[in-house]
Order: sequence, then C-alpha cells, then structure tokens
Amino acid sequence: MPYKETYPSKLLEEATDAISTLPGIGRRSALRLALHLLKQPQENVAHLTKSIDNLRNNVQYCSTCMMISDGPTCSICSDRSRDHKTICVVESVRDVMSIENTGQFHGVYHVLGGIISPINGIGPSDLTIKELKQRIEAISKDPQMLNGAEVILALSGDVEGETTSFYIYRQISSYGIRISTLARGLGFGDDLEYADELTLGRSITNRQLFQP
Amino acid sequence: MPYKETYPSKLLEEATDAISTLPGIGRRSALRLALHLLKQPQENVAHLTKSIDNLRNNVQYCSTCMMISDGPTCSICSDRSRDHKTICVVESVRDVMSIENTGQFHGVYHVLGGIISPINGIGPSDLTIKELKQRIEAISKDPQMLNGAEVILALSGDVEGETTSFYIYRQISSYGIRISTLARGLGFGDDLEYADELTLGRSITNRQLFQP
Repeated sequence: MPYKETYPSKLLEEATDAISTLPGIGRRSALRLALHLLKQPQENVAHLTKSIDNLRNNVQYCSTCMMISDGPTCSICSDRSRDHKTICVVESVRDVMSIENTGQFHGVYHVLGGIISPINGIGPSDLTIKELKQRIEAISKDPQMLNGAEVILALSGDVEGETTSFYIYRQISSYGIRISTLARGLGFGDDLEYADELTLGRSITNRQLFQP
Repeated sequence: MPYKETYPSKLLEEATDAISTLPGIGRRSALRLALHLLKQPQENVAHLTKSIDNLRNNVQYCSTCMMISDGPTCSICSDRSRDHKTICVVESVRDVMSIENTGQFHGVYHVLGGIISPINGIGPSDLTIKELKQRIEAISKDPQMLNGAEVILALSGDVEGETTSFYIYRQISSYGIRISTLARGLGFGDDLEYADELTLGRSITNRQLFQP
C-alpha cells in the first residue's frame, strides 16, 4: 500500500517531495525530516541549504585525476612527496577516501566517475578512461617516468568491475606499463566456513608465503 | 571507533557536516548523500534546497489551532462543514496528519507543539496550552457553542503524555466542557498473548458492548 498523506501545507508537501528524492529516504522519513527542519533555528536550516548549494555549485574536479577538489589540482596530485608513478584507478570519490583511510597507499589516483554497466546505460565514453589513457601515454613517452610505473586497477570484484578492469587493460596494455589489480582473498577476520567458493578458490590459488 | 575521514574538499566536508546534523543520518550516510547530490543536475539540487528554505521561512501557523498552514487560518479551521465544537488536542503536526488519514474525525484540532517533559526541559509554558485555554474560555461564554462541546485529549499513552493530559485537564475542567481521551486497549490484529499487562488490564476494565 503506497503511503499517501493529505498535507496541511503546500510548502510542507513540496519540501517532503524534494527530500524523498534522496536515496534511502522514503516519504515517511522525508516528512519527519521536513517537520524536524521546521523546528530548527532559521540560521541552522539556512546553513544546511547553503552548504549543499555551495558544494554543488562550487566544487571543482582535479584536472589530472578527476577527483573532487577545492582547486584546479587536488591535494593528492599537488603533493610532491607522493609517488606519481603509481596510479590507482578507482570508480568513485568514495573509493579514494576509503583507500586514503587505510594509510597504505602513497601513489596517486584516477577517478573513473563510474563503472561500465550496460544495464544502467553507462559505457566507456561516460567514464574518464580517455583521460586515463592520455595520462599513461604521457608517462610512456618519458623513460624516467615509465621506469617502475604501475597502474593499479582497484575496482570492485563484481562482474561490472571485472568488465571495466578488462576494458581498461586492453586500452592501456600496449604502453608497456605494469598493470596490477587488488588482491582478492579471504578478508581479515573472515570465517573459512562462510566464505564463498570463488573467493576461497582464489585465496588458495593466489596463496602467499607465510611471513610471521 | 568514531568514523573519521580526510575530506578531499572543504565544501564536501561542510556539506557532510551539515547533513549529518539531521536526525537519523550519521556521518557515513551524510557523505553518501553529499556525493549523491554532487552527481545530480544543478537544478534538482537547487530545487531541493529552495523548497527547504521556502518551508522554513514561509510556513505559517494557524492562529486558531497552531497547525502549520499556508495562510493565517488552516484549511481545517476554515472548513465550515467541520464540527468546531469538538477540539482534538494533539502533540504535533504529525498527529493531525495521522488522525486526518483515518478519516474518522470531523472536528477541529489544537496542536500543542510538544509534550510536557521535565527531562527535556519542556514545561507547560513552552506549549500552546494558554491558547487552548483561551479557545475553551471563549466557547464557555457562548451557550450555543458550549452545548455539546468536547475536548479530546489525544496524547500518547506514555508517562509524559499522561502528565500533559492531566495538566491540561486541571487547567480546563472548570469551564464545564466535556473532556475525553482516546480509547486504550488491544490494537486491531494484536495477539492477546503478547499484549502488555497494563494494556490488557485496561482493555478488560473498559470492555465494550459486542456489536456484531
């Protein structure tokens, strides 16, 4: 049964409608949020809407890695202490933040802005694969950069991720740059009993030297 | 472990901070929403923020029942076909919408704007009890209105609701108006086995004639 309401105010209905377009927020939650906002001080609500407008209208994208940024070049690409020979290719901004949080990666990134997904109508031309190719082409022309350079395809392990990885691999394999992908295997703390066969199988095939 | 992130953009961090002040939305969800908004067409985001600002800045409250409204008098109070002798006292706008949805009530409302709650620092003077008293006083001075008039205390069944009902009862009992409260008992479809003792006890005490 769809949730239908008679709204006491057009303004409330419009705000509820707009809020319910957000992912994971249904009409009931949207109404609850709208009524919550009504009770908040005017300046708090203005701060919320202004910071959203600001984000949408003023955010920039790094011209090198396509990461969101406050300027034409992001803080990672402009950090000279990072390893600019190692490019980690990810689907989204969120992935960069996740990898940065691990503190384990000191190279630079390339944000595709999505993943190849015929079902969702996303093809290679909707992603920043062309820009990635140009970056790698530039590296390949500079022997000092090419020596030890690496592209890490850090995409998700599902069919779409694998497809995108394979597509990019074919596009860039001719440049003579080392291409790697994330290790797949049993997660830390994972129980062997509950691991799926594919993951467990790969964990065995790609077993590593035990280093205590 | 608190969820901490390094943000690639100050604008993203500010928007995430602001969105995470909403009830039920943590930092992770706020970031997800902010990144979602970044991907939306500019006019959609502008529509969202504008409708929220509009709601907060332009909504009015009905001068009679304190319900939110698009004008000085709400659509219920200005509806002459409704029974203006029967006033249903509720905690919030949400409650009016819930009762209207039942289609079972044809009187008018009075929105308290909260409930007496010493723990949350909400006293009687924070609610619209004074306005309710004035409404009832006006009715009590008009014999034609007073005849058959009724105040329904439709507050929640918890301690705070009961306290508020009792407080209002003491304030208005001298005006000679009939004062009722919502029926408490077993909900439709409720299993006797799982009903709490208090509800079941009241259901027996307040048993009703079986009308097949």
